[in-house]
Amino acid sequence: MSDARAITELAKRRGFFFGANEAYGGVAGFYTFGPEGAALKRNVEAAWRDRFTVREGNDEIEAPTIAPEAVFEASGHLDGFDDMLVECGECGESHRADHLVEDATDVEEAESLPIPEVEELVAEYEIACPSCGAPLAGRSIEEFNLMFETSIGPGSGHPGYLRPETAQGIFVEFPRLKEYARNKLPFGITQVGRAYRNEISPRKGIVRTREFTQAELEQFVDPDDDDPPLDRVADVSLRLYPAAEQEAPDGEYVEATVAEAVAEGIVASDWVAYYLGVAREWYDRIGVDGDRFRFRQHLPGERAHYAADCWDAESEVSGAVSDDPTVGDWIEIAGFAYRGDYDLSKHADHSDDDFTVFEQYDEPRTVERAVVDPDMSVLGPEFGGSAGDVADALRDLAARDPDAFDGDEVTVEVGGEDVTLDAEVANFRIEEQTEAGEHVTPHVVEPSFGVDRTVYTLIAHGYDRDLIDGEERTYLSLSPEVAPTDVAVFPLVSDEALENLADDVVADLRSAGLSVAHDDSGNIGRRYRRQDEVGTPLSVTVDHESVEERPATVTVRDRDSTAQVRMPVDELAAQLETILAGDDAFESLLETYERVETDVTRS
Amino acid sequence: MSDARAITELAKRRGFFFGANEAYGGVAGFYTFGPEGAALKRNVEAAWRDRFTVREGNDEIEAPTIAPEAVFEASGHLDGFDDMLVECGECGESHRADHLVEDATDVEEAESLPIPEVEELVAEYEIACPSCGAPLAGRSIEEFNLMFETSIGPGSGHPGYLRPETAQGIFVEFPRLKEYARNKLPFGITQVGRAYRNEISPRKGIVRTREFTQAELEQFVDPDDDDPPLDRVADVSLRLYPAAEQEAPDGEYVEATVAEAVAEGIVASDWVAYYLGVAREWYDRIGVDGDRFRFRQHLPGERAHYAADCWDAESEVSGAVSDDPTVGDWIEIAGFAYRGDYDLSKHADHSDDDFTVFEQYDEPRTVERAVVDPDMSVLGPEFGGSAGDVADALRDLAARDPDAFDGDEVTVEVGGEDVTLDAEVANFRIEEQTEAGEHVTPHVVEPSFGVDRTVYTLIAHGYDRDLIDGEERTYLSLSPEVAPTDVAVFPLVSDEALENLADDVVADLRSAGLSVAHDDSGNIGRRYRRQDEVGTPLSVTVDHESVEERPATVTVRDRDSTAQVRMPVDELAAQLETILAGDDAFESLLETYERVETDVTRS
Repeated sequence: MSDARAITELAKRRGFFFGANEAYGGVAGFYTFGPEGAALKRNVEAAWRDRFTVREGNDEIEAPTIAPEAVFEASGHLDGFDDMLVECGECGESHRADHLVEDATDVEEAESLPIPEVEELVAEYEIACPSCGAPLAGRSIEEFNLMFETSIGPGSGHPGYLRPETAQGIFVEFPRLKEYARNKLPFGITQVGRAYRNEISPRKGIVRTREFTQAELEQFVDPDDDDPPLDRVADVSLRLYPAAEQEAPDGEYVEATVAEAVAEGIVASDWVAYYLGVAREWYDRIGVDGDRFRFRQHLPGERAHYAADCWDAESEVSGAVSDDPTVGDWIEIAGFAYRGDYDLSKHADHSDDDFTVFEQYDEPRTVERAVVDPDMSVLGPEFGGSAGDVADALRDLAARDPDAFDGDEVTVEVGGEDVTLDAEVANFRIEEQTEAGEHVTPHVVEPSFGVDRTVYTLIAHGYDRDLIDGEERTYLSLSPEVAPTDVAVFPLVSDEALENLADDVVADLRSAGLSVAHDDSGNIGRRYRRQDEVGTPLSVTVDHESVEERPATVTVRDRDSTAQVRMPVDELAAQLETILAGDDAFESLLETYERVETDVTRS
Repeated sequence: MSDARAITELAKRRGFFFGANEAYGGVAGFYTFGPEGAALKRNVEAAWRDRFTVREGNDEIEAPTIAPEAVFEASGHLDGFDDMLVECGECGESHRADHLVEDATDVEEAESLPIPEVEELVAEYEIACPSCGAPLAGRSIEEFNLMFETSIGPGSGHPGYLRPETAQGIFVEFPRLKEYARNKLPFGITQVGRAYRNEISPRKGIVRTREFTQAELEQFVDPDDDDPPLDRVADVSLRLYPAAEQEAPDGEYVEATVAEAVAEGIVASDWVAYYLGVAREWYDRIGVDGDRFRFRQHLPGERAHYAADCWDAESEVSGAVSDDPTVGDWIEIAGFAYRGDYDLSKHADHSDDDFTVFEQYDEPRTVERAVVDPDMSVLGPEFGGSAGDVADALRDLAARDPDAFDGDEVTVEVGGEDVTLDAEVANFRIEEQTEAGEHVTPHVVEPSFGVDRTVYTLIAHGYDRDLIDGEERTYLSLSPEVAPTDVAVFPLVSDEALENLADDVVADLRSAGLSVAHDDSGNIGRRYRRQDEVGTPLSVTVDHESVEERPATVTVRDRDSTAQVRMPVDELAAQLETILAGDDAFESLLETYERVETDVTRS
């Protein structure tokens, strides 16, 4: 069984995730997180919130998942958020044409090709329908919008869409959010929540779903004034896969610290580099394997025109560990984009609200401005209804190119035609003006994380098998930071004294803030395996010795090494807390307490 | 300004919640939670999770919000989840006909009336369109389904719906969830997430929205065997408003403990009574005002036919405190229903999966069963194609009424007609059978909480005004359990020594696990007011005395009383933690430390 299949089987059997609504045959692209998966996912979200909201000093909001059409008209999703749809003429099945082309040819980013070219490739490579085998050559390819559409209220007059990203719910509320930030840049707003993409034919399990959870941060900055606190992450080392290396025949990874990446211009934006560093540290902490992780720069064709610099965090999920970038099965788990003023300007254009921040100068500034005061008594008779347009054109010209007023005549373009005037009519002059500040449209830096894919990565990177006493064992080596359960507590056998002590231990560990599972059914070996498979870092067993000894003792077992120690109950909570917080490793217990050499507790 | 308007204004100004997408005019029924509101909401969800998932020993899952049609065909939402829609013939505006009737007449639950009756009432009372004033008499009333519909994948062949409740995502996965629970009843599954109702014309702000968050618990029980741990909440006192009191001319509240409510049969289901008790304690803890809270039983017309006993938790949000149930503006904030086997049976009928739990007996049981073994060589020639149906009818009769086989002849109904046979043909006999257990369709007890309305209730119940030094002050008396921020820290003035100490205090309190705001702008009075308005329980100010004294001291101010003490910095974290955990009140600080009599820190 391949790792991917084994992981899917484990996920279903142990309650991490499974295809939703299977009682009714299910629908591709929808998954339900069972008890273990939901806990793991919540822990990932909490860890993200702690790092990207609280510790960065940002604020989190919660917007609705449905928004009216006007929002997506402005954002560009209504027009541009499409995939290439080809429908089989034989069986009627729908497919993503660009994916079919990528599977059948050497083309890597077919999405960025024009439709006619993709149609030609389908014909040239004689691509067939994956469902029924009929040839697809000659079938027309359509743009299919990926937003789920619905209707708000009765009738069809108010279309609404399920958000394709949480970001728009932040951008559209910028006029209010800037007030909460007291009009001071930089500030960051985060959101964790569902997003939706009506994929044409989702095929990759939980990696490509129609409903998923994003954790997004929109960092609003003054492009001229605001710098990130780069020194906090200057020494974090990054495995980078720049566009140029991807396009070179034997392209390689570039290993660089954040400081080096900035100094050498590998990452163009300081802000993007800063968040790559923060993300790298965070991924480490939650248990993403550094050997199966990289930052890949977008190729020129992948990048939206407004996004100056884009990097994806990618994880390898097939089990391959290699320095060769072409080895392994890589999935995007986050994106880091410098989006400029694109988003806020779009909303400013489409609405009447103010998407700028008024930045007060330390002291009012006196500036010279070229101004005109066109003589309407001349322009009126000469241009009639267009006189106002001519005056506006003169004002624009003065602001843009004051030198144009140096001669006797001045020429402006109005309604596509050149109009030449006596320069005096414009009443051009240079004025001194006092300004208290200026309106700035903030630029946006967007680290955007896919929560479901992060969860999948943690399971894939934690998944391991070994032999214990000759028996094969499967375990999930999850970080204590995100493991669904911190500690499992077992009374060895059904016995009142043992059960009472186990209950006390459970209560004790819970009041220390740990999440605790209590399991008293089945033999102890099976109980260990059950916890190994759901990634519980530590197991505590109460046995006969526990209640005979004074002070009472228990055994503590480490998930990964299966090593065990016997230690006093009253030191348990403090010791486990330290280990689970990552301040110490299980090895420290082996140094302090008696090691239980054989698996004495397996009765 | 009324409380309701003042609360809405405060909510918007301070970032609790506001109408979404206002840059584009907004759409009724959609709200965004700003930084303060999102934090308050998250805390409510965490408190709910702690009480109803963790402490009850239940498991939480996360299902998609979109589900295919088959799920809602089975659940009954596709056919029955409707509101009464009347469209104005003049202006085209849509309205809820039942609400119009309730506003214009004495009818209280117009929703439960048949449509023709509502049409008659509209005519009889000459009800006019609230938008344009045109008469609505004669307009036909339609059933409008409240689910948001969308289409999954390309084409219109796969309708999907946004879930109207989180519950179905639990019921439909029962066949898998019971495996995780190792086929042992009782067990409970919870879910916290978005739900959607496409309201015809939502009018009540955040109280009636089209997208909202539910926290639901589905408790699966064996109706014959499982009892709730009633003793845990036996003494919790409940303010109950039974159906009979609602229907009586001068109906009153009934005050009873959980034990009394069960003993006297006021609450029919032990499980429902148990959860009323748990909920009452929980509401207390998070800050719902007991004087503005009640449990109201559903009237017979409100109740779904399958729901044996239903109670709503209701909060009063207009500010009225009264023993008279007819006084005040009550909103439903939770529902508690005994749903029997309705949900699981429906899904069992509509799918091929097994929605029962096989309950193993402690020991195999020998039971006597009446069985038949019809002689098909007689039935075949006599009944032809119906012979099988006759045999089935005989089997059913044997199970139902063994005595029917006592005589010489036996009569069964087949296809609506009586068929009489020689009893011998049936080969009736009593057999001993050994059974290892039985298949039980669990009953469901459902406590279902509206998170947004709970948040609104907490703001409404916490909202208060008083006079401080002759100035009116607004504050939110939120419980520390849910307040967006635990403590605010202020350096009194801009000064390096003060700011450094303030930074240390912030770091100290944060590492004690408290959520801390740091504010150094504006005069100190304004900073206090800002925290008062967002409900921060405690504020710490670092002033000149702080840095002059050894050990360093700070002042701590109580939000509600505005009382202040001066205390050493190194005792701060431990003291505030105790107060915020509810183990002690601010008064305890007044007993231990020097009270700051005048507002010396207001510079």
